[in-house]
Amino acid sequence: MPDNRSATPSTEEPDERGARGDGPAAVTIAYIAESAGVSVPTVSKVLNGRSGVSDDTRARVEELIHRYGYRKPPKSRSNLVELVFRELESMWAVEIIRGVERAARRNRVGVLVSEFGLQGTPARTIDDTVGRRPQCVLSVAQLSEDERDQLKAKGIPFVVFDPNEDLPDDVPFVGATNWRGGQAATRHLIELGHRRIAMISGPDHPFCLARLAGYSSALAEAGLPVEPDLVVKTLLTREDGHKAARDLLSRPDRPSAVFTANDMQALGVYQAARELGLSIPADLSVVGFDDVPAVSWVDPPLTTVHQPLAEMAVAATELALALGRGEDVPQVGLEIATTLTVRESTAPPKD
Amino acid sequence: MPDNRSATPSTEEPDERGARGDGPAAVTIAYIAESAGVSVPTVSKVLNGRSGVSDDTRARVEELIHRYGYRKPPKSRSNLVELVFRELESMWAVEIIRGVERAARRNRVGVLVSEFGLQGTPARTIDDTVGRRPQCVLSVAQLSEDERDQLKAKGIPFVVFDPNEDLPDDVPFVGATNWRGGQAATRHLIELGHRRIAMISGPDHPFCLARLAGYSSALAEAGLPVEPDLVVKTLLTREDGHKAARDLLSRPDRPSAVFTANDMQALGVYQAARELGLSIPADLSVVGFDDVPAVSWVDPPLTTVHQPLAEMAVAATELALALGRGEDVPQVGLEIATTLTVRESTAPPKD
Repeated sequence: MPDNRSATPSTEEPDERGARGDGPAAVTIAYIAESAGVSVPTVSKVLNGRSGVSDDTRARVEELIHRYGYRKPPKSRSNLVELVFRELESMWAVEIIRGVERAARRNRVGVLVSEFGLQGTPARTIDDTVGRRPQCVLSVAQLSEDERDQLKAKGIPFVVFDPNEDLPDDVPFVGATNWRGGQAATRHLIELGHRRIAMISGPDHPFCLARLAGYSSALAEAGLPVEPDLVVKTLLTREDGHKAARDLLSRPDRPSAVFTANDMQALGVYQAARELGLSIPADLSVVGFDDVPAVSWVDPPLTTVHQPLAEMAVAATELALALGRGEDVPQVGLEIATTLTVRESTAPPKD
Repeated sequence: MPDNRSATPSTEEPDERGARGDGPAAVTIAYIAESAGVSVPTVSKVLNGRSGVSDDTRARVEELIHRYGYRKPPKSRSNLVELVFRELESMWAVEIIRGVERAARRNRVGVLVSEFGLQGTPARTIDDTVGRRPQCVLSVAQLSEDERDQLKAKGIPFVVFDPNEDLPDDVPFVGATNWRGGQAATRHLIELGHRRIAMISGPDHPFCLARLAGYSSALAEAGLPVEPDLVVKTLLTREDGHKAARDLLSRPDRPSAVFTANDMQALGVYQAARELGLSIPADLSVVGFDDVPAVSWVDPPLTTVHQPLAEMAVAATELALALGRGEDVPQVGLEIATTLTVRESTAPPKD
């Protein structure tokens, strides 16, 4: 009986996999063949889209492949993680890259940074990513369902960083405790004595909705009403924060405090307050969200909810690498705790 | 006579090289063999440190290898550029990454981002970089002579981004026109009517010295003296800028304008001015250097010398890739022009 390793070409998948041991541990091609009552080469033909299999058999094998969630192990993997951005714009991209790089360094893998953005041609696509055969993919913002399917088909695990849309339950993600952050920011203002607290919120992404819900919950627990005219939804930019604040602060019954969905909006509130001759925090308290480096340098330094980007990036990288090693990961989604950083933009109201 | 391409294994280098055509164009192993009066396999043995060559012959071949600057072509290169940071701290890292990524995308290569920093173990080293076989390396800040030698030995071309020490003439680099930038900033203040202009400068890196020299040149061309007590050398941080400004601005004959070697120092000047009750620009004009995103959001928005980081990153990437393709590059060092961005922190002096 010859050594098993000198297998025939048609059994390349299980053999390759056994040799490397980096695929998911549960289902093998042999197991699928046995369950379907066919040979390993037949399953291989179905997996590789080759002919020579009856329609019935193909359907039965495909059903089992789907049921068991079998993934063809990649031909070979490069010693890299790929970090995908839609656009490398944000102030906090460097924090994320730094966290990923540190976790990757600990695991002795390299970090590829890609921008899928629309600017500049040719655009990078998920095909390029697949072609580079990374151990895993970390995606800042969204992967489309198509892109996720392509990665799945190639057995490349991925983790979504700070998702901005609702994802199916089986999509691994790492985010921040946005609801708790919104609650902490609003509680802080309530504890200072504020009663008319406005919120400049963002688009209907889950993280914005969670921050807004945290604001509402804190008001509710203090017995304060959520006044719809004190909640403005706008974009997460300084310009839009400025416009929303101009409106809120020009009213006769203006709020004494504003909580914003991110720091850029808060900087827009600063600008509006300056233009209107309002002093922060004497006339107006402001709380932001994110704690990007710049907000500790502005005058006054901004009280804000600290989003632990570096820790989130480390956790996401470790999770993605564990999935890449085929480890049995106890949880595929997690939120890292935010903390309130109190600086000088908040004070009791004048009344 | 058989086709040259079906060469014997011992001539693998020139053959590989001819097939790929990505090595430096000048010297081949065959040429060295001919010059030394030995066979190609003999040169190959010397190059690969194998035995079977007399000491005399080895010495002669090594001398020729050295004299002609022959480099063994790399075994194979990954389709990547590697961007090396000492530390991923700076505000402008994301601008650089973005520029490199866009140029790399146009050239259809991936971007690896590495941090060599001392924090976190194990540290990445040049060995890791060499092992990943990138097409070329872009180094932000410095590569040691040892690191440069290792890359050279492996035939991996590199470009130093914004060098902070003097480099040998043959080291490719991309920087900014720091001297012209310092001159433009100072001229702007002189044109506004300032006569007592201080400079908060940085450590003795070439880019800081060039900014300081630009300041001196602008004063000289206006017939103004460089007053040594108006020039402070300190670190490129907000804290050190703050400390230096506290000192400069507390004097009875305080300057009416300050030019700083970078934006962080300028933000420190803002802080000192606030503490001393000085209004910018009414009591004090301030000009920074770099134009990081945050300085347009502070109050008042900072007048600063714009360093074209994204353009520098694109140029550095294109240069490194061209070197990687073995192209004959006309110049291996270049400075991209800075521009003065006038915002609201500069105005004519009071009296």
